Amino acid sequence: MAVGLGPLPVLHPVPGFELGIASAGIKRPGRKDVVVMRCAEGARVAGVTTTNAFCAAPVLITRERLGGEVRYLLTNTGNANAGTGADGLARARSACARLAELAGVSESAVLPFSTGVIGEPLPVEKIEAALPAALADLKEDNWALAAEGIMTTDTLPKGASRRFSHDGVTVTVTGTSKGAGMIRPNMATMLGYIATDVAVAQSVLQDLVRDAANKSFNRITIDGDTSTNDCCMLVATGRAALPEITEASGELFGKLRQAVFEVFMDIAQAIVRDGEGATKFVTVQVNGGGNHQECLDVAYAVAHSPLIKTALFASDPNWGRILAAVGYAGVPQLDVGLIDVFLGDVCIASKGARAASYTEAQGAEVMAREEIGIRIELGRGDASETIWTTDLSHEYVKINAEYRT
Amino acid sequence: MAVGLGPLPVLHPVPGFELGIASAGIKRPGRKDVVVMRCAEGARVAGVTTTNAFCAAPVLITRERLGGEVRYLLTNTGNANAGTGADGLARARSACARLAELAGVSESAVLPFSTGVIGEPLPVEKIEAALPAALADLKEDNWALAAEGIMTTDTLPKGASRRFSHDGVTVTVTGTSKGAGMIRPNMATMLGYIATDVAVAQSVLQDLVRDAANKSFNRITIDGDTSTNDCCMLVATGRAALPEITEASGELFGKLRQAVFEVFMDIAQAIVRDGEGATKFVTVQVNGGGNHQECLDVAYAVAHSPLIKTALFASDPNWGRILAAVGYAGVPQLDVGLIDVFLGDVCIASKGARAASYTEAQGAEVMAREEIGIRIELGRGDASETIWTTDLSHEYVKINAEYRT
Repeated sequence: MAVGLGPLPVLHPVPGFELGIASAGIKRPGRKDVVVMRCAEGARVAGVTTTNAFCAAPVLITRERLGGEVRYLLTNTGNANAGTGADGLARARSACARLAELAGVSESAVLPFSTGVIGEPLPVEKIEAALPAALADLKEDNWALAAEGIMTTDTLPKGASRRFSHDGVTVTVTGTSKGAGMIRPNMATMLGYIATDVAVAQSVLQDLVRDAANKSFNRITIDGDTSTNDCCMLVATGRAALPEITEASGELFGKLRQAVFEVFMDIAQAIVRDGEGATKFVTVQVNGGGNHQECLDVAYAVAHSPLIKTALFASDPNWGRILAAVGYAGVPQLDVGLIDVFLGDVCIASKGARAASYTEAQGAEVMAREEIGIRIELGRGDASETIWTTDLSHEYVKINAEYRT
Repeated sequence: MAVGLGPLPVLHPVPGFELGIASAGIKRPGRKDVVVMRCAEGARVAGVTTTNAFCAAPVLITRERLGGEVRYLLTNTGNANAGTGADGLARARSACARLAELAGVSESAVLPFSTGVIGEPLPVEKIEAALPAALADLKEDNWALAAEGIMTTDTLPKGASRRFSHDGVTVTVTGTSKGAGMIRPNMATMLGYIATDVAVAQSVLQDLVRDAANKSFNRITIDGDTSTNDCCMLVATGRAALPEITEASGELFGKLRQAVFEVFMDIAQAIVRDGEGATKFVTVQVNGGGNHQECLDVAYAVAHSPLIKTALFASDPNWGRILAAVGYAGVPQLDVGLIDVFLGDVCIASKGARAASYTEAQGAEVMAREEIGIRIELGRGDASETIWTTDLSHEYVKINAEYRT
């Protein structure tokens, strides 16, 4: 049911970044469920992780090791290793130690990532048994298979790639993400891996991943549920024959930033397009806010309202529900008499009430589309924010009622 | 699909409070959709109204008139008269003026209430035409028909009644409510009307309605959507042969408070039991919080999670989703190592991880029930809060996708 999400685009290999895929049979036999990514020696890895207090064991370990030398990213699907306490930490450490041993690196150079059902013990023996096959499979041209290997309830693999040229050298930025439910990333995403071959200093890379995630993964929501396992990693292998970027300025940084932001946005929006049961891809733009937070509060109130989401599913221009959500979003001293609401280009409410020009036929025409824009003008200031979300369909209920069966 | 909600109990008449029902044909011909309530001369009326900034025209008028002499409450279903601007205000005032004229009272003695679709013009002529029939129908023993007359997507009428004796005099408290969707009252409820025949001073009555609503209507949620039209009114007719209650203390006040709280709780929980598509009645109790707000934040995060709600619908003890919601509820410095989670009496998570004693069969047994308790022990302090909610079913999506068709 993915909305406007086609087959994977060409995912250019990133020199110095290899991916290997294997089947550990964690949830189902034969499914590709273990992905190992290898970063070239000297590569820098930055990342952001979930703000969920119940974060998973692998997230705790990844946080601890980020900033040091990182050589391997180890991902499993089918089990989130969250809500598993000290035993979960021990299992995650064990898998990392085994990979480190096989690869001849220190244990702290391995970052673990897990996704899947929460609260079950991680089948660490199965994962460890699959590691040799994943290592043997490592190659730079393996993004497409890795994108499949990290999927859970996703119906399609997700990836994006950009290339630009600088001083005659081609630079590549390629990324993949997974996620379709329990999606309201907060300082991170479900799982996202993005690599570039340009060299970037650690602090610059860390700021870049934070800023890019803030404008992409942190602006999407499917069901409002922030996951225990969100992680988004940005790797700079330094294999391009260009000087290291040591400051967030200059032409090369500008080009890289642009490419990174585009890749982040593509793979973040891909998660929404593949949202569980999604039949609509919805852009909620809030302009004229007194500050960014109140724009986000209004946008998320609209994006999380089950009443608006079911109306979107039904292609019903029941715009009164949008007004109601704006009204309860908690914006202080909101003057509803200044508010305009647009569905696509159609003004449905003007100065807080139904627009004189509005006809139901206009609203119905916009709502019938697969990609729908909701624009709210608050008339209070200059701040704007945009987020992306889905509708709420029968299929969403079905998927999540039957998730463990 | 109402959960544990049977036919109306006996609703004792309240001397000095009459109800009359009529059909105006607002949404469908023949449907009872106008209810007039008459308060005896000298009655006091207190109330709380929605905090939604986009509140409806009748809410604005009711707020303006509350505190003055109130003699009539005029309710229509089928149209919320919200998002209707100045024209909506004029229409609501017109209906009140017509009722005042027919009844021979001042216009400001009439409070209007509307519920139904948002953003459509109120068909005020139809309502005005139905007023003579509603007035002719006024009688004290008409609560059951009024409870039906205020229904919208409700499948069953809602009401509760208590009697107590004081100094040989029988005192009655009776109430009715409506609501099944767009339910997360905030300082009010969808629509609730409660009357007693004891005399209560205005300020005491206002505090009582606020406190009772806070512990009942303001502790329920179905879809997290705070309505534009929430109103809850408490009427004291003063017809009981007892001295006026002028302070929030003493034996008579204590008995009244108890009866009022019980009636509020019954009719608030009835809204949840009749929640759109509800197949479960869920109590979420959070204990051991550092303060009340953090208990509420955790409780609402659990109650609003579409993932938990679909698991409840599926009777699937997917308790990891509960941990995830606790984790993203925004409690500062939450130590997950102190948290216990219970499903009914079964400890599913202890000290932040799966309880050693827990078996899937235990969880499945609790989840199969119609009435389910989720208890979360935060281990941070002494504050507790309890709220009530429903599951999220296919039927919810169906009802709200087809609401206007």
